This record gives sequence, C-alpha cells and structure tokens, in this order.
Amino acid sequence: MSLSKNQLKLITSLGQKKYRVIHNLFIAEGTKVVNEFLNSSFQLEALFCVDDSEYKNCNNITLISKTELKKISKLSAPNNVLAIFKIPTAKSIENEGLVLVLDELNDPGNLGTIIRLSDWFGVKQIVCSKNTVDCYNAKVVQASMGSLSRVNITYTDLETYLKNSEKPKFASLMEGENVYKTKLPKDAILVMGNEANGISKDVLNLLDNSVSIPRFGNLKQTESLNVATATAILLSEFKRLT
Amino acid sequence: MSLSKNQLKLITSLGQKKYRVIHNLFIAEGTKVVNEFLNSSFQLEALFCVDDSEYKNCNNITLISKTELKKISKLSAPNNVLAIFKIPTAKSIENEGLVLVLDELNDPGNLGTIIRLSDWFGVKQIVCSKNTVDCYNAKVVQASMGSLSRVNITYTDLETYLKNSEKPKFASLMEGENVYKTKLPKDAILVMGNEANGISKDVLNLLDNSVSIPRFGNLKQTESLNVATATAILLSEFKRLT
Repeated sequence: MSLSKNQLKLITSLGQKKYRVIHNLFIAEGTKVVNEFLNSSFQLEALFCVDDSEYKNCNNITLISKTELKKISKLSAPNNVLAIFKIPTAKSIENEGLVLVLDELNDPGNLGTIIRLSDWFGVKQIVCSKNTVDCYNAKVVQASMGSLSRVNITYTDLETYLKNSEKPKFASLMEGENVYKTKLPKDAILVMGNEANGISKDVLNLLDNSVSIPRFGNLKQTESLNVATATAILLSEFKRLT
Repeated sequence: MSLSKNQLKLITSLGQKKYRVIHNLFIAEGTKVVNEFLNSSFQLEALFCVDDSEYKNCNNITLISKTELKKISKLSAPNNVLAIFKIPTAKSIENEGLVLVLDELNDPGNLGTIIRLSDWFGVKQIVCSKNTVDCYNAKVVQASMGSLSRVNITYTDLETYLKNSEKPKFASLMEGENVYKTKLPKDAILVMGNEANGISKDVLNLLDNSVSIPRFGNLKQTESLNVATATAILLSEFKRLT
C-alpha cells in the first residue's frame, strides 16, 4: 500500500481550519500523541505509518514509506505515524470547579501549553473566544501532547457566557491584585487575554476581580510574562491548597 | 550604504556557536530586544536597520534595505533592526539568594523562557551545565526578550559547583516532595533537568532535597509538565512569600 492522491490531498487540506471544519477531521502526529488519542474517546478516521506493529488493532491503516511520511508531516523529525481523527461533537460546557477562559489567544504553541497545564491541574473546561486559535490546529495538537483528549474546549461568545455565569470571575492583569495575597475560590472563572493586547475591554467590564503575578526583579522593566507561563503560575495558585 | 560581503558573512557565521565564540559576538533582532541590549551594559559592535531614526546616537550603523534585512534575519517577520553585540566577559557567580541550575537543557525556547522568568522573579544567577544550549543562540536571545541583559548566566561543571556550595539544594523531580507542602528557604539552589531525561544521576547524587508539582488531573497519565512551565511554578513557589 502507499499514499493515494486523494489521501495526500485530504491530509494537506487539513492544515487549514476551513477544511478541518468541512471534513470534521484533524491530524495528530508522532507515536506518543497518536497513542493518547487512540486510548481516548476520539474516533480514528485513518492512520498512516511506516511500521504498523503497534497498530495491528486499528482499522484503516495505510503503510507508507519514510519519504511519504516526511512529505505529509509537519514535524521537523517525523517519527513513524500520522493519524486523522474525527473532531468530536461539541459537549456542553462543564461548569464544575475552575473554568479557564481565553480571550483571543493567537499563538498555537501557547494554547497547546495551556491545554496541557489545564489537564495537569485538573481544569476540565476551557472556554475560548471565537477568535482564539483553533484547538485542532496541528501545532496546538502537538504542543498539548494528547491533553486535548482530556480537557473540554468550547468556542463561544465570551460576553454571553460570562453574563450567564454566577461564578466569581478573575481577570489576569498586569496591574491587578497580588495573586499571592488574594483568597482564590475553588469554584471560579479565570480569564487570560491576548498575547499583545490582554483582555478586551468588553470582556474586562464583565469581570469582578483581578489577579497579577508580582514582579520581583528589576521594576523598571515593562515586559510581561508570556501568557502560557502566567497561566502556569495562576493555575498553580488556584489549585495549590485545594 | 548597504550590506558588504564581509558583513553578510559575519552575520551568517554568528548563527553557529563556534563562530560566536571565535568572534565573541552574538546577534539580537527586533526593536524591543535590540533596545533592551542598547540600554544595558552590553557593548554594540554593529547595527543594521531599515530606518535609523531611533538609532542616531549609535556608532557603526549600516542602513540596509528591507530585502537585505529579510536575508540576514532569522525572524519570520523581521522588523527594522538587527544588531551585533559583544559577548561580555564572564562575571563571577552571584551567589546571593535563589540560584537556578540547569542540567543539560537542550531547547533554546525553553532556555529563553527560563531566563525571562528568572528576571521576573529576581533570580540573579543561572548556572548551566556545559552541555546546556548556548544562551547567545539566536532563539534564546529572542525568547528571553532582553532579560539576558539582566540575569548572570554561567556555564560550568555542575558537580564542582554543587560540591562547593553550602546552600540547600533542591532537585525538581517527577516523584519528589509536594512543593506546596515544603518549606522553601530564600537562599537555595533549584536544579532543573533535561527535557527528556531529567537531572543526570551524578548531579542528582549531590542534591539533598527534592520538589514536585503535584498532578491534580487524571492520575493515570505519565506526561510531565514542560520544563519552562515547571520552572515558572517552582520559581513562583520559592518567591511567593518572600
């Protein structure tokens, strides 16, 4: 067997959000990430591998050459397998405990890291603004290392969502309350903003509390922490004593 | 003016550590990062820009075209300026307060993020194993966003350094003491290990304490936190109540 023209065309098209939506499919790569999806509730559509010894129980396997894998892979060092999974039907928002809200997050690496962090800290739900980067973007899938299969991610109108929630809502800001001195409830919403511009004004107006990570170093500098590292520290603060 | 063949050759060569060491020079790119180095104790060797209005007071400026900038830049969206700075003479190790030790960190993005975090949390000294990625690597310089000019970084034999230090030494491990329940001294050494293999055995033998970030999510998963996000959380823990 080897890669057909139609398969190649489909795989290439799934690099674009438009075609992921049309086909309702996305791509995962590499043994580790693919295995995490295979062991989850995600449904496999097709699997392409150089060595199929690990995948004897899967349907729809195509054996391909290393050269073919290199052609379809987005990884710098492709390692044996690329799989296409179905995008699951959107689940209703899981409102238990801490909910993480992302307002126009742009960078796929940041979103992937944040999904992985949420999985680690037991955050079951991420609510994203509609203009946040697609969680089935290849770079997000790879950076989240399979955590995407364990965290519920919903894209919705943030203003409507926030207006209808009675949880205490915390904005992550440069100039907010010192997070180390703030009492953080178990049941809350934490909002992280865009990499360059922070939380948009309309969303910020709906938030009643704020938190900041105080700077201990040179106070003259205005550079902020990267949003993924800030999320790491804030999730740790919300969870550390629960 | 425009770029000479020799300048082009020098800039290209500085992409490799070998030539950075020979010439004792490194490259910084982009208005923000270049300005941070210009406003630090680092010495400018040469500056190449499309628009020199911001750099009237600098010596050794070369006006170049956008096309030339694109040719010499490693950024996906080069913005006006690329500068060559002198690598400063190694300072002696700053032993005050918390010292961060990195054992064979490989990924330049991780090192850059960790330098930026250290700057934020007021960590003045990072001690790296000799096989840790070079802090003057272009990706490290960009990811550290100028923090490189404010944190002292020393490459040395870790075993010798650790043997000669009387500070309490903490290993960041997957299976260590719960960091949230550990008393963390102000004056300490925190050791972070390699992305894939953690802390090497010979280094680990020299450490008396360990810390771990407990997992709150699905306990079956074995995936660890990325070393940069783990460093973010651990530095926050060491500093939060100081």
